Amino acid sequence: MKVDLDRLMAKYNLDVIFILGGEEPNTYRAYLMNGADANGHVIKKRGEPPVAIVNPMEIDEARPSGLTLYTPEDFGAGEIRKQFKGDRAGILKAQMAAYFDKLGLRGRLGLYGTGDVYLTAHLIHEVLSALPGIEVAFDYPASQLFQEAYETKDSAEIEQLKLVARLSSEVVKAVHEFITQHRANSDGLVVNSDGQPLTIGAVKRFIRIQELERGLENNAGMIFAQGRDAGVPHSSGQDDQPLQTGQSIVFDFFPRLISSGYYHDMTRTWSLGYATPEVQAAYDHVMEAFNLVDDSLNVGDDPSLYQGQVCDVFEAHGHKTPRTHPGASEGYVHSLGHGVGLNVHEAPHLNTYSLGESLAPGNVFTVEPGLYYPDRGFGVRVEDTLFFDENGVLQRLTDFPYDLVVPLNG
Amino acid sequence: MKVDLDRLMAKYNLDVIFILGGEEPNTYRAYLMNGADANGHVIKKRGEPPVAIVNPMEIDEARPSGLTLYTPEDFGAGEIRKQFKGDRAGILKAQMAAYFDKLGLRGRLGLYGTGDVYLTAHLIHEVLSALPGIEVAFDYPASQLFQEAYETKDSAEIEQLKLVARLSSEVVKAVHEFITQHRANSDGLVVNSDGQPLTIGAVKRFIRIQELERGLENNAGMIFAQGRDAGVPHSSGQDDQPLQTGQSIVFDFFPRLISSGYYHDMTRTWSLGYATPEVQAAYDHVMEAFNLVDDSLNVGDDPSLYQGQVCDVFEAHGHKTPRTHPGASEGYVHSLGHGVGLNVHEAPHLNTYSLGESLAPGNVFTVEPGLYYPDRGFGVRVEDTLFFDENGVLQRLTDFPYDLVVPLNG
Repeated sequence: MKVDLDRLMAKYNLDVIFILGGEEPNTYRAYLMNGADANGHVIKKRGEPPVAIVNPMEIDEARPSGLTLYTPEDFGAGEIRKQFKGDRAGILKAQMAAYFDKLGLRGRLGLYGTGDVYLTAHLIHEVLSALPGIEVAFDYPASQLFQEAYETKDSAEIEQLKLVARLSSEVVKAVHEFITQHRANSDGLVVNSDGQPLTIGAVKRFIRIQELERGLENNAGMIFAQGRDAGVPHSSGQDDQPLQTGQSIVFDFFPRLISSGYYHDMTRTWSLGYATPEVQAAYDHVMEAFNLVDDSLNVGDDPSLYQGQVCDVFEAHGHKTPRTHPGASEGYVHSLGHGVGLNVHEAPHLNTYSLGESLAPGNVFTVEPGLYYPDRGFGVRVEDTLFFDENGVLQRLTDFPYDLVVPLNG
Repeated sequence: MKVDLDRLMAKYNLDVIFILGGEEPNTYRAYLMNGADANGHVIKKRGEPPVAIVNPMEIDEARPSGLTLYTPEDFGAGEIRKQFKGDRAGILKAQMAAYFDKLGLRGRLGLYGTGDVYLTAHLIHEVLSALPGIEVAFDYPASQLFQEAYETKDSAEIEQLKLVARLSSEVVKAVHEFITQHRANSDGLVVNSDGQPLTIGAVKRFIRIQELERGLENNAGMIFAQGRDAGVPHSSGQDDQPLQTGQSIVFDFFPRLISSGYYHDMTRTWSLGYATPEVQAAYDHVMEAFNLVDDSLNVGDDPSLYQGQVCDVFEAHGHKTPRTHPGASEGYVHSLGHGVGLNVHEAPHLNTYSLGESLAPGNVFTVEPGLYYPDRGFGVRVEDTLFFDENGVLQRLTDFPYDLVVPLNG
């Protein structure tokens, strides 16, 4: 949680957190700015609240953060630009030196953010390393500071996550209803009342309009993949493909709130009209694994336990798993789940290698077992986002039935 | 242009370009992957075509790039994970060493991309610096390699930029028509046929649906800002605010094609029903500056010349400019324009400090003079995207009239 940042800075021996980054979305910055992700730097000394230096043109966007705001002009930017004219490297160096000097930044410095890779390398070597009393942190453990903070959510974050979950579930319900209003033609194509085939592109367009109406955006993409594509976990589906009966469709939906940036993540597998026996069997195995984990989840558990449970179920039914066949592209080929917050994927990670971590109140995470058989033309995944409340009780965020077969009533 | 990359690598003395980055959008990676931005690394040795290492789950997304594709498994990822178990730092180090060894990467290394700042710092210091025969580039000049390539577009890129310009202009036309179908009520509010006020939120929703219908997305945001907000260049406008007659509205629209990632950028200033004399005067000054630049643009010119022309016009009318009042928040407060491509802002930069650069065939850029008076409750900006064709002839991309007053015919 955000209140843990000072404790985590002490744990990782950091005196200053300095957020780098430019125009691109920057989750670290959004987190410290309470959702108001304006182009600029956020700086936090240990034991003090964060402050931001933003472009004067972005000051309105930054204000809702509640942070003390500066602009580069407060650090002599105009004079510096005059002094160095077109020498951009010189401007960068002098500007950064002014920030560090005037804000009194000293000690071990953790650089975080999402930013330009080359500029990060340049800044560290040619700019920050020359500043007095500054030591840049490079060790691996401190890279996890924000991940550790993200791992548990405070009540303000849970409220946002409940809102985005409710709206996302509504969209999936609307998509389900939209599809049921179609019918199958004699070729097994799903068509509207005029006999026009329904394509994946048309479904995605319908989804996007549903998102707009609810203040959601799918900036991280979405998956609506049929048949062989459903068997490739990250294939997002082909827009020009018409929907067909009896094909597995993986609909993995992970929009975020435009207003605050919080994500939801849920997946349903659908088969329109009817399901083939092999898709039904894979679905049954996935639901067996899903329900077993769902019934077992407890605070204090090592999350790798659940990945083990899922592998047990799948292996008993003869499927490959990451435990028996690491790196395989059929069977169960990924980890069980991940945290969800301002990042669609963040801590905690429910995978084989999370040994030693344990689930805690405030964790918000997905459970998403799946089975993939691209060469046999199908895939199945079912995913909910859940959380442990402050009392350690498991609570559901996703709210939509799991049924495989979608009736065509049109 | 992309064909210049080997020349630019020689210019900056780089033997290898290595793209870092994760799930987040990565323009450098998209550029080298011809629009198919899959999570992973792209590596280019000087004189050889780029290759990509992508997650096996993203291989379908990566295939349209046409690049030779590897997965981490081709570099022993499974064995490495087994060997290092949960030691993520060890896995990272061994995996990276395997990439460099098996691909025979040696010499001066340029790290590019958009990525996690801390992980970049860690990788450089704890991983790459330990590799034999590798020297990481940190000097400022080489940070500009991709910017230099982006600065001129090849014919395939121009085609994408024409497409996104045409579709964006269509959206602005549709928005204009939508607004004209409303009327003013006796309070000066813009209302629909039922007398319901039209809000900025409703206009933005209309815009987003228009985008969807044309395969556009506005992942970088949009500005539809009225009155005082129009006077703050980056204020995006308040959703709950009703549109009013006689207020300046800055509509800055910069969507991109979902399919290929290319942006358009255009701005119109509108005043609904009528314009006040002071908004009309500011608009006239902006158009005077805009038209002067538009008539002057020539390949071979130093682009700072045009920023000077605009300052001349504005100063003659008594406005502050960055030349007379750097860092001011009223008058003309920004630079004249920027390149547009896979980034909404990229080279060439048409500003005061671009001395020594010159405009060239293949440049695609905006011209966007503006005047801002937040304390007097208005702002004006007009922006087109233009390009110089292969013969150095100026061509227009944006296609929409400049008129300030929008009639209300509802």
